[in-house]
Amino acid sequence: MPSQRGNGAVALLKALHAGGARICFANPGTTELTLVDALAEVPEIRSILSLFEGVCTGAADGYFRVSGEVPLTLLHLGPGFANGIANLHNARRAHSGIINIIGDHAQWHLPYDAPLTSDIRSLASPVSRAVVTMTDINAIDADAAHALEAARGVPGGPATLIVPTDIMDTHVAPAAAVPAQPAQRRKVSAERIAQAAERAGQAPDLILLLGGDALSPEAQRAAAAIVGKLGGRVLMEPYPAIVTLGGDLPPIERQAYFPDDVIRQMGEALVVVAGTRAPISYFGYEGYPSQLVPDERLLILSELDEDGVGALQALAETLAAAAVTPATHASPAPASTPDAALTPNLIVESLIERLPEDAIISLEGSTLGGPWLREARRAKRHRVMTNTGGAIGQGLPCAAGAALAAPGSRVVSLQSDGSGHYTLQALWTMAREKLPVTIILAANHRYGILQTELNRVEAPLEDPVIASLTRLDNPRADWTALAAGYGVEAVRVTDVAGLNAALERGLSLDGPLLIQAELP
Amino acid sequence: MPSQRGNGAVALLKALHAGGARICFANPGTTELTLVDALAEVPEIRSILSLFEGVCTGAADGYFRVSGEVPLTLLHLGPGFANGIANLHNARRAHSGIINIIGDHAQWHLPYDAPLTSDIRSLASPVSRAVVTMTDINAIDADAAHALEAARGVPGGPATLIVPTDIMDTHVAPAAAVPAQPAQRRKVSAERIAQAAERAGQAPDLILLLGGDALSPEAQRAAAAIVGKLGGRVLMEPYPAIVTLGGDLPPIERQAYFPDDVIRQMGEALVVVAGTRAPISYFGYEGYPSQLVPDERLLILSELDEDGVGALQALAETLAAAAVTPATHASPAPASTPDAALTPNLIVESLIERLPEDAIISLEGSTLGGPWLREARRAKRHRVMTNTGGAIGQGLPCAAGAALAAPGSRVVSLQSDGSGHYTLQALWTMAREKLPVTIILAANHRYGILQTELNRVEAPLEDPVIASLTRLDNPRADWTALAAGYGVEAVRVTDVAGLNAALERGLSLDGPLLIQAELP
Repeated sequence: MPSQRGNGAVALLKALHAGGARICFANPGTTELTLVDALAEVPEIRSILSLFEGVCTGAADGYFRVSGEVPLTLLHLGPGFANGIANLHNARRAHSGIINIIGDHAQWHLPYDAPLTSDIRSLASPVSRAVVTMTDINAIDADAAHALEAARGVPGGPATLIVPTDIMDTHVAPAAAVPAQPAQRRKVSAERIAQAAERAGQAPDLILLLGGDALSPEAQRAAAAIVGKLGGRVLMEPYPAIVTLGGDLPPIERQAYFPDDVIRQMGEALVVVAGTRAPISYFGYEGYPSQLVPDERLLILSELDEDGVGALQALAETLAAAAVTPATHASPAPASTPDAALTPNLIVESLIERLPEDAIISLEGSTLGGPWLREARRAKRHRVMTNTGGAIGQGLPCAAGAALAAPGSRVVSLQSDGSGHYTLQALWTMAREKLPVTIILAANHRYGILQTELNRVEAPLEDPVIASLTRLDNPRADWTALAAGYGVEAVRVTDVAGLNAALERGLSLDGPLLIQAELP
Repeated sequence: MPSQRGNGAVALLKALHAGGARICFANPGTTELTLVDALAEVPEIRSILSLFEGVCTGAADGYFRVSGEVPLTLLHLGPGFANGIANLHNARRAHSGIINIIGDHAQWHLPYDAPLTSDIRSLASPVSRAVVTMTDINAIDADAAHALEAARGVPGGPATLIVPTDIMDTHVAPAAAVPAQPAQRRKVSAERIAQAAERAGQAPDLILLLGGDALSPEAQRAAAAIVGKLGGRVLMEPYPAIVTLGGDLPPIERQAYFPDDVIRQMGEALVVVAGTRAPISYFGYEGYPSQLVPDERLLILSELDEDGVGALQALAETLAAAAVTPATHASPAPASTPDAALTPNLIVESLIERLPEDAIISLEGSTLGGPWLREARRAKRHRVMTNTGGAIGQGLPCAAGAALAAPGSRVVSLQSDGSGHYTLQALWTMAREKLPVTIILAANHRYGILQTELNRVEAPLEDPVIASLTRLDNPRADWTALAAGYGVEAVRVTDVAGLNAALERGLSLDGPLLIQAELP
């Protein structure tokens, strides 16, 4: 058997490393073995194996959100990549710069339609800002630069390199890699700021809706100053990629979910949008518009590729709005006894009391996500990642990626059970890498959001077929066993005292702990 | 909130039921709730919930392979569908007729690019023989017929219906559904049979390579008669969708995997191909051709859309080849003691001794797959499903689908641990539906195939990076805990006596049992 190994793969990894890549979330197969060899030769890119591709892509997303550095994924042809699509969908919505490396058959082998052959480009396009099929051994650096540029664009997102084995196996002289510069955000013009100041000043009611870059602490403070001057409220987009909350930051309200709630929430206010899009209904509901604030009450202060922080600061300056010192939040006395059965609100209270400074929370599911984002301002300063695209199975992988991106930080995963099942293999990666992730798994053993939606249309939840498609109680998953199976310590709790003790233990561990919190 | 529910969804399900659909493997979300309601109204289609979409699609594939009846899947927009793509890739290679129903946003909501919006057609096309976007409430029956026709074509495969909620919610008068007729295979002409007989008769060495429909027991018997007359060997394609083996069937050899092995195996024989394709290298290896038998030594007796069984029978008749009674196979005395540590061969021996008549085996992974297909002829008559497309995570879901397709039959899942992790959520479905699936989980805690490939090129398996990307021993998954977490009884065995006892218990249970068989 002749050796297949060349250094095209090494050249590719070196070019990506020069462009800032420091980590590779991998689930390789035969077509990626040259890249596995190359990862051994380029150890400055750290390799993290996962048991399932959705863990790789979700972890890459979390890694980017927390660090702003571009991670790699290494995935096996079309089908392996396909398993990573759901979390790349979220990453695309989060504008997370990720470079997917997908091995493919040698170019001369493709026409034979071997079993694993598929149309990778068609699969990758919907979740990629750029799809580059590498076909020229002399263009490895250029292809890497192309992918880096797309990933680190403004707004950035996943970029995909389809890498035939013959390109990876070819011996090439590594070129001098030219690292691409991250793109810069466009400044919002002084004229637009002045117009916004005038219109906001005249509005009878005002909402500043922040998202993306315009959710940074500086942006939140500028927004608070503006509404301190003009009146009104500051809202955040409903599903931020990452947002800093709590500590001495001013209060911020989250945009609601159902269209009727959003319409009520927005009232007759002028909605000034920075760093995100105008409010859109999450799903289309008969009788409600898709766009929930009419154009005449919308003012786009900064587009997704513009400098929202600078725009908000300039607007505050124009309005001569002074910085606001938020009131310190006296925590309400917990309204529970130690033996009280758990509720989402009690779980949130327990965590508010114990969350360490600078923790990172990975939120998935509305059971704990809603209450947390309502109360987060009362916790110490922390960052929260939410599910940006609605593709479930994000929470656990994203938590793992966050922990790898911020060594020394505590990561807390607030995870609904229904969505947790999609990528539970992330637990293995947490155990393997000894990641300090404390998981509170909200176990209500049902698809709560579906029951909520069905209730809104008065569907019969007790109908045997409808019940069988929305309840997860036959059998009830035992998450402590699932966690143990993947090497993660776990405990099941049913009351406040149990949760408090488990949480204290979890937050003190160097590695992961899963707390199965039983809910009604 | 106005009611969203209409009966477009009911009309669709009734049309698909009229066309033969009897089961729906579902993982619905908000955009599919009208279809959930409709499933309650059309209970003649059985709903099976799974925790992950790859379980739905893999189970649908297994269901079709065993029953030949078209199952439905119900999946949630692009990201939910994406999680099902890997197993649909295998289903496409298996020519399994499956109809995927994917909910999408209402057509009027699509332009707003809500979070879950994506290009579903681009995602679905690579694994679908037809992708139909339903846009006309008066075309529901026609769209259903289109999908059924594609799914049940010759060769058939997955077909995908993209179903906007506004179409499902519309009140329509159900039309008289016209069930589509399954397509018929074309007959191979008498002239081609005569030419084949002549050429085969003159060949110094002969191989009959069977696959697809030409792997049926009748086809295998006709092939045995032909080589009984002319000399030569009967081979099966390396990854059959489903093949009947054992009992009184004649011996059949499996096409090898690596190109050098296939080239040796084929020697200088004339290779007569029925129901499958000419031997192609699974991957492209430098120095080896993609097509492993040159055109001049190939004779295509029947194409994929032709009647391979009839062609083999006609060829046997033309050659006046008499039916062959295969020698009964005296089982070799097991070369082990009860306390012998397990090996793949010992596991296979234990199962050969115990497998009940008419069992169905779902094979995934070469650890047990290779030895089983070498020895299967010594077992009682049974059917084997293999991984047709190389997308891993097929074995457990496919076993679940097979059990649902053949009530009363024993299903055995011979599953490698590496690939088992991708869709372990299938265990929950097995527990929930009390499926008589006995799983032998070959736990070697590594990606054996990758180590084999790396060994072929003398890569350093002990290099820390290469080891970290090919070994699964840190931590070792505890499959008994994973199974318990999903409600499946499980036992870990390390020696022959332990395996024998576990297997006897598993094969006597009404529900699933997972046997974690530890291997070196």
